[in-house]
Amino acid sequence: MQTENTAAQHRPGKLWGVGIGPGDPELLTLKAVQVLWQSDVVILPDANGPEKTAMNIVHNYLKGKTLLFAKTPMVRDPAVLEKAHEKAAEEICTLLDQGKQVAFVTLGDPAIYSTYMYLHQRVLSRGYNVEVVPGVPSFCAAAARLNRSLCQGREPLLIIPASYDPSALLDVPANKVFMKAGRSILELQKVLADKGQLDGASLVENCGMANERVYPRFADLTEPSGYFSLVIVKAETP
Amino acid sequence: MQTENTAAQHRPGKLWGVGIGPGDPELLTLKAVQVLWQSDVVILPDANGPEKTAMNIVHNYLKGKTLLFAKTPMVRDPAVLEKAHEKAAEEICTLLDQGKQVAFVTLGDPAIYSTYMYLHQRVLSRGYNVEVVPGVPSFCAAAARLNRSLCQGREPLLIIPASYDPSALLDVPANKVFMKAGRSILELQKVLADKGQLDGASLVENCGMANERVYPRFADLTEPSGYFSLVIVKAETP
Repeated sequence: MQTENTAAQHRPGKLWGVGIGPGDPELLTLKAVQVLWQSDVVILPDANGPEKTAMNIVHNYLKGKTLLFAKTPMVRDPAVLEKAHEKAAEEICTLLDQGKQVAFVTLGDPAIYSTYMYLHQRVLSRGYNVEVVPGVPSFCAAAARLNRSLCQGREPLLIIPASYDPSALLDVPANKVFMKAGRSILELQKVLADKGQLDGASLVENCGMANERVYPRFADLTEPSGYFSLVIVKAETP
Repeated sequence: MQTENTAAQHRPGKLWGVGIGPGDPELLTLKAVQVLWQSDVVILPDANGPEKTAMNIVHNYLKGKTLLFAKTPMVRDPAVLEKAHEKAAEEICTLLDQGKQVAFVTLGDPAIYSTYMYLHQRVLSRGYNVEVVPGVPSFCAAAARLNRSLCQGREPLLIIPASYDPSALLDVPANKVFMKAGRSILELQKVLADKGQLDGASLVENCGMANERVYPRFADLTEPSGYFSLVIVKAETP
């Protein structure tokens, strides 16, 4: 399809899935900045908070770009999601057919719980030129803020998404990260306490953003926290 | 101790643990570059390979810096390691007492299996000014290269270091990353095959470096691979 570009277009279209890190604009990679600079169209996530956070990270690089916002329905119905992803992939392919360089930005790293990868697979399977630019995941930034490692020596590390039953994997012999635990943070606190794992747990909310809160001792939290809350659980106490 | 700086020194000493990403110099963050630029002393890892890789990533930012190489003994004896870490921390503190800005660079992200965090904890506990700059972990870059996600939706992700028995955690219901699996790569291949998990496994060797090799199907590998080999295992096939 790339060969169908008109003569006026000198570059074939390409889709870049750009990880922009967890919140601090200084955690953008050189490659992310370069891709943003040379892109024609920048697509930002559009759902309850991420949009504003993403905009805050990349706003210095948007001058003269066409901005689009990805509409991701906040539902779990696979058929509805499938249809939404198909439609978004279709729209991206139309831009690529026009020879556009398209940067789809995603918080943290694209390989870790991003909506982007659903679109990436679809656009790739249609034969288009695509590339993922990896980014700094939120759990690395949270560990840095806590002056803690996530894993050392022989320790495995288990990343657990918010939608997973927090009690189901507590017996796995690994350090643990609970992602986006905001909705059920006090429940998680209780489950960890019941297992004797609360003393080694730390919490970072909105890491690297203006409203960041750090609890080296997760046990000290007494009220619910926001969507971007991340809990690190280790055998050792902080 | 920072107040003991001589009058000639205008800034108090600070130690930065800088994640420099997995190999591609373009995956340095803006913050890592800034910290390297403003540092007086840059400490590089010095052990079987990482030194050269780290140097390749940061060499553009070393002009006029004092370069040091961290001697990490490749042993498992805790007493020997403890002594080596204590000595390295001592040397860093001497530099900080002189008001130096010290950047200790580490491949990937400092929170994930880095020697640096042992020193960080020691220097921090002595009351010095320290900060970790998170970086892009190797598994994010490997996933990007493979056009695969590491985890989506409700999938947990388990990171397993090379020193861990690869068969011990295969029954955990999670996607898996085997780090630095080079030494026992064919053994890992066999263990995965025995569990029926080889079809969903991919391998990336030396991700982002000149000698990179990518096996979307890990099953296609027929000979041992190098130290920086990373295997991603998922239920779905690539």
